[in-house]
Amino acid sequence: MKLLVTQNYETLSQITADIILMKWSENRRVNLALTAGASPKRVYEILGERLNQVGFDQSLAHFYNFDEITLKNQELGLTMQALIDELYQPLGIKKENIEILTAKNYQEYDKKIAQDAGLDLVLMGIGEDGHFCGNMPQFTSFEYGVYRVPLEPEGELYRLIESATPHTPGDEMVTFGPQTIMSAKELVLIATGEKKAEIIKQALSGPIIEDVPASILRLHPNLTVILDEAAASQLK
Amino acid sequence: MKLLVTQNYETLSQITADIILMKWSENRRVNLALTAGASPKRVYEILGERLNQVGFDQSLAHFYNFDEITLKNQELGLTMQALIDELYQPLGIKKENIEILTAKNYQEYDKKIAQDAGLDLVLMGIGEDGHFCGNMPQFTSFEYGVYRVPLEPEGELYRLIESATPHTPGDEMVTFGPQTIMSAKELVLIATGEKKAEIIKQALSGPIIEDVPASILRLHPNLTVILDEAAASQLK
Amino acid sequence: MKLLVTQNYETLSQITADIILMKWSENRRVNLALTAGASPKRVYEILGERLNQVGFDQSLAHFYNFDEITLKNQELGLTMQALIDELYQPLGIKKENIEILTAKNYQEYDKKIAQDAGLDLVLMGIGEDGHFCGNMPQFTSFEYGVYRVPLEPEGELYRLIESATPHTPGDEMVTFGPQTIMSAKELVLIATGEKKAEIIKQALSGPIIEDVPASILRLHPNLTVILDEAAASQLK
Amino acid sequence: MKLLVTQNYETLSQITADIILMKWSENRRVNLALTAGASPKRVYEILGERLNQVGFDQSLAHFYNFDEITLKNQELGLTMQALIDELYQPLGIKKENIEILTAKNYQEYDKKIAQDAGLDLVLMGIGEDGHFCGNMPQFTSFEYGVYRVPLEPEGELYRLIESATPHTPGDEMVTFGPQTIMSAKELVLIATGEKKAEIIKQALSGPIIEDVPASILRLHPNLTVILDEAAASQLK
Repeated sequence: MKLLVTQNYETLSQITADIILMKWSENRRVNLALTAGASPKRVYEILGERLNQVGFDQSLAHFYNFDEITLKNQELGLTMQALIDELYQPLGIKKENIEILTAKNYQEYDKKIAQDAGLDLVLMGIGEDGHFCGNMPQFTSFEYGVYRVPLEPEGELYRLIESATPHTPGDEMVTFGPQTIMSAKELVLIATGEKKAEIIKQALSGPIIEDVPASILRLHPNLTVILDEAAASQLK
Repeated sequence: MKLLVTQNYETLSQITADIILMKWSENRRVNLALTAGASPKRVYEILGERLNQVGFDQSLAHFYNFDEITLKNQELGLTMQALIDELYQPLGIKKENIEILTAKNYQEYDKKIAQDAGLDLVLMGIGEDGHFCGNMPQFTSFEYGVYRVPLEPEGELYRLIESATPHTPGDEMVTFGPQTIMSAKELVLIATGEKKAEIIKQALSGPIIEDVPASILRLHPNLTVILDEAAASQLK
Repeated sequence: MKLLVTQNYETLSQITADIILMKWSENRRVNLALTAGASPKRVYEILGERLNQVGFDQSLAHFYNFDEITLKNQELGLTMQALIDELYQPLGIKKENIEILTAKNYQEYDKKIAQDAGLDLVLMGIGEDGHFCGNMPQFTSFEYGVYRVPLEPEGELYRLIESATPHTPGDEMVTFGPQTIMSAKELVLIATGEKKAEIIKQALSGPIIEDVPASILRLHPNLTVILDEAAASQLK
Repeated sequence: MKLLVTQNYETLSQITADIILMKWSENRRVNLALTAGASPKRVYEILGERLNQVGFDQSLAHFYNFDEITLKNQELGLTMQALIDELYQPLGIKKENIEILTAKNYQEYDKKIAQDAGLDLVLMGIGEDGHFCGNMPQFTSFEYGVYRVPLEPEGELYRLIESATPHTPGDEMVTFGPQTIMSAKELVLIATGEKKAEIIKQALSGPIIEDVPASILRLHPNLTVILDEAAASQLK
C-alpha cells in the first residue's frame, strides 16, 4: 500500500486527477472504473480542466460503473444517473466508451471484464461503515466476484438508498465484489474529512475482516490511498 | 535485452513454448502475434502437447498475423495460409480469436491494435538478411507503423516469395513496422542453426541500422532473445 | 487467479521451472523467494538442468527464505538448511546472492524488502492445513507483515517441526505474513497429489478466511496456481 | 508514444511533477534519473510544494545523474553541481539516496544499474540539436550504453560547455547512451517554447536517425512526451 496524506482536499484532488489523466492518455485501450459521489467532485472538475488544457486522443478509454442500484420505473439505475451527471456528461465521454453494468448482465460481467483485457484503474471512496463499491458489511464476502444483493424495503440499505434519490428504490443492487476489484491492475482509494477518520483507521490499520470490507484493499500490491489530513487524523 | 543461449533446439523450443503458454493462460484477454515459419516448428508442437496436458480457459487469447503477402487468385495470403497450417489449425484456435491483417485493412491496423489494448507478446524469427516480420533491408524504416510494400515482378522480394509458394505472388506485402513492434509489451526473438550466426552477430552486437532491421529490437526494454549454440556461435 | 491443471507432476515441474528461469534471467536484479520442501523437488532438478543448458548472467537474482524455524544449537534454521541442500548448493547460488531472514532481523525485514525494490516472484506450496509460508491456521492474520510465532514444546507446531528434523526445535518461527506476500509482484502456488485435493478445494473455491490461510492468495492480481490432476480432483 | 500537448508551461509542470511524485511514493525502492536544466525548473518547484503538502516515506527513491561533464579543479562535474542546486538540495534529498555517475565509474555503470534493479523513470529534456542526456548528434550511436566523449578545446561541445559554467571544462563527458535509456521502464520527455518546435517536429515525426538522437525515444513502449503548445506548434 502506498499512502499519501495531503494537507488539503485540493491537493488530493489534483494528484488524483493526474493519476486518472495518465491512464486515460495511454495510447491503447484502458478500462477505468471511477466512482460517483461527493469525494471525487473536485477531482472531476480538475480532470475537466485538464481535458480542456491537454490535447490527446481521448477515445481509447472505456468507463465502467462498478455498482448499480435499480430504481422503480427508471431505465437507468442510481449509479449510472450519478455518473452521467457528474462525470460522463461534463467530461464529454461518448456513449461507445461507456460500459454498463446492470442487474440484467451482472452474472456475465466478470467474464466480460476478462474479455475486455481487465480493469486498468479503479478509483473508489470509502463509506463510514467501511464499504467500497457496493460491498457493505454483512452483505459482502471476500471471495465474491460481481454479485447481486436484493433490496428489502424494511432493510437499512433500502432506507439509505431512499434518502439518496427522489426515485423509489428497485429490487436489487449489483456490484463488483472484492475478487473483481482485487483483480484490477491498479486501485486508488480516496477519503476526505474528519467523518472518515475512524473508518480509515480501521480499514488501514485494523484487522482485515469482512465487517470492514475496505480493509481487504490493502492487500493489493498496487493500491494508492490518498487522504487529506482530517481523514488521516486517527492513523498513528 | 535478455539473452538465453541454449545447448540445443529442443531446449529453446521448450522455453519458448512455456513463454507463450504463460501469456495465453492469463485470465484476461491477451493479444499474441506469433510467427509462422521453420524456426518455431518444434515450439508449436510442444505448445500443442501443453494444450493437451494443461487445462485452462483458452478462449481469452487473440492471435494476430504480423505480416501478409498477397497471392494471385487466393482469398488468404501466404502468411495466413502458413499460420492456419502450422498454428491455428493444429492448436484448435477458433475463428473468433483470429485477427487478420490484410492489404485492405493495414492502414487502420495500428489504430485497431491500440483499440484492442495493445500487443502483449510478439514472437519473431530473424532472416539471414536481418529482416524481422516483413521488415526487409532497403524497404523498412525505423519510424514505420503498419505499412505496405508493393511487389515488383523483377524484384528480389518477389522472387523470394515465388520460391516459397506454389501460388503466384500478388501485388503487395503488408507488415507491422518497427514502430508497431516496438510498442508491444514483450518481444521474443528466436534463432537456430549456424546459418543464422552471422546475422545474429550483426543484429545483437553490430550497429543499430536499418540495413539490419532486427538490430532495432535490442532497444526494447522487454526483449528476450533465445538462441541455440550454433546461432550464437559468432557472439563474443 | 490463473489456474493451470496439468496431467502430471512432470509437466507441472517443467512449467514452474521455466517460470523461475524467465525471472532469473531478467537483465536486472530480481528478488525471488522460492520454497523448500517436497513439492518443488522436481522443479529444482529441471531448473538445474536448465542452468546447465542455458547460458545467461546468473548473478543478478537474489534469493530470500520466506520463513525460518530456529533450531537449538544450530547456526542455521530448518528452512535455510533445507534451501541450501535442495536449492542453493545444487544450483550453485553464491553467498552474496542469498538474503537471510532470521529470528534476529525479522522486525526489519519488510523494510529491507522495500529497500531491495520488492519481491519479484514468490513460489509457494500449500500445507494440508491450508498454510502457506509459515502462515498456519490459528497463528496468522491477514494483516501481518513479517512476524514471529513462539514455539511451545507442548504445541502441535512444535511436534510437527520435531518430526521434520533430527535437531531440537528452537524457541520461535518467523515468516513473511500475508501482507508481505501479497505485496510481491507475482505469486506461484503449486500443489500435487491427492492428499492436497481437499485443501485446494477449500483454498480456491471456499470462503477466504484465516482458518484457510492460503485462501487469501487468490485475491492477488498476479497469482498462478499450478496443480496436477490429483490435487485438482475436488475442484468442480 | 503517449503525447500530451498542454496549453501552457504551468500545466505541463504540474502533470510532470505528479508523474514523479507517483513514482517517488512507491512503497519500494525506485530509481529515478531526473534532468537538470531550464525546462524542469517549475516542475521541481511544484514537486517541492508537493513534498511539503504530502506525507509519505521519501527515503525509498534513489536519484541518478544520467550524464556528467568534468570541470577542471572541481570535485563535482557540471551536471551534479546543477542537480544539487536545482533538485537535491531544495528537495532535501539525502546523500545516501544519490547515486553518482562520474568519468571514473562510467564503465561499470550499466552493470550497476542492472544490479540496482534498473531505472524506473527517466525525465529528460531535448536540445535544439536533438540531443537527450549527453547524446549529441555526431557523438552518439544508438547501440551505446553508458559511454565517454572526450572534450577537445577546439570543439563545439567544449565551447558550449564553457558558455554554461564559470569553471573551465575538463577532459571528458560521460552519459547514459541510447541503450541505457531505452532499458528504463518509463521515459518522460518534456519540451517548452517555440525554440523547441522545429526539433520536436523532427524528433517526433521525422526519420529515426542518429543525427536527431531524441528521435529514437519514440520507439520506447512507455514514453510520455509532454509539450506546451509552442513546442508542439510545428507538429501536424
